[in-house]
Amino acid sequence: MKLYHCAGARSFRPLWALEEMGLDFEFELMDFPPRFSRPGYLDINPLGTVPAFTDGPVLMTESSAICQYLGTKYGPTDLTVGVDEPDYGRYLNFLFMSDATLTFPQTIVLRYTALEPEERRLPQAAADYAQWFASRLRGALKLMGPDYACAGRFTMADIAVGYAIKLAGLIGLDQALTPEARAYYARITDRPAFARAEAWEAGRAIAT
Amino acid sequence: MKLYHCAGARSFRPLWALEEMGLDFEFELMDFPPRFSRPGYLDINPLGTVPAFTDGPVLMTESSAICQYLGTKYGPTDLTVGVDEPDYGRYLNFLFMSDATLTFPQTIVLRYTALEPEERRLPQAAADYAQWFASRLRGALKLMGPDYACAGRFTMADIAVGYAIKLAGLIGLDQALTPEARAYYARITDRPAFARAEAWEAGRAIAT
Repeated sequence: MKLYHCAGARSFRPLWALEEMGLDFEFELMDFPPRFSRPGYLDINPLGTVPAFTDGPVLMTESSAICQYLGTKYGPTDLTVGVDEPDYGRYLNFLFMSDATLTFPQTIVLRYTALEPEERRLPQAAADYAQWFASRLRGALKLMGPDYACAGRFTMADIAVGYAIKLAGLIGLDQALTPEARAYYARITDRPAFARAEAWEAGRAIAT
Repeated sequence: MKLYHCAGARSFRPLWALEEMGLDFEFELMDFPPRFSRPGYLDINPLGTVPAFTDGPVLMTESSAICQYLGTKYGPTDLTVGVDEPDYGRYLNFLFMSDATLTFPQTIVLRYTALEPEERRLPQAAADYAQWFASRLRGALKLMGPDYACAGRFTMADIAVGYAIKLAGLIGLDQALTPEARAYYARITDRPAFARAEAWEAGRAIAT
């Protein structure tokens, strides 16, 4: 298994999941955007996006999908919620919500406040989707259990939603982080695997 | 089980999936946006979004997640790809990609060309994400099998991606639909269950 990562990118989700599961993996830290910075990247991932994750012939590009793949393929693990558990539906819902509803709006904010050249920036679009993110994050927190997203334990759903909160801090969306969001984030990131994932991201860990 | 739907909305994915599986369900067709048009909707779905899907105490709001839930909870069915099949990873990837990478950009186009009042429209953002959608759809098609998204058969992944192509036709993104995309869409929608889902949407079917 190999994970291609850029600091701050969604590939942090599978990186964290790999560390939670204690799996062996190869790791490559790239500059963003890798389609320009990393020769041959489009041969690995024709979409040019991050993450790219390979497992033999399997290529995956969607961060929350990779978390579910790892948990179900290389488990059993309490990090996934099984079809026979009462919270199975809520679990799947948080996994999908994390990217489609939380992180995509964040990328719009980032694009129109920072990535685009000055003359193409759109403060209105950035403000619209900053507000969207804040509102959807409040909604997600409302649907959660008391300590974790679902199932009364730490799962891939917390990794998926947790990364969105981490990204909010990185791209200036701190004002969306209510005390409730900050308490949840502190709770789910106070884990050795999260610290190890951050070490990989900072280039402080050595690839196997 | 009950599905709350608005014509054209992402709830078409679970509607189509319910019909493919031949499951009994309650159905409510609402005007958009239901948070204003349908009294009590926020009590059903605190997010106010569409779809809302309930199965006893379970509430789900993410369209592709509901498809996976139905297939794994109420199967066995060939509409899902199991963890032991070679295309399991690609299957999950298409499910997640359909919403986070294909449909979210479509909603930005719709917002800034039609839903917002004249003075808040943003032709640049609409054009940026029309281009994004076109490019990501080309990418998705590149990653697909010859006839279907994956596993050599029609699955929930085709429902998930197929809806994004249907929506493109509804919101003026036809120019993103290459001959390859049109052929794929014609292939996956030539099914009785798709016709029945369209009948529900048009108010021509009778709720059970």
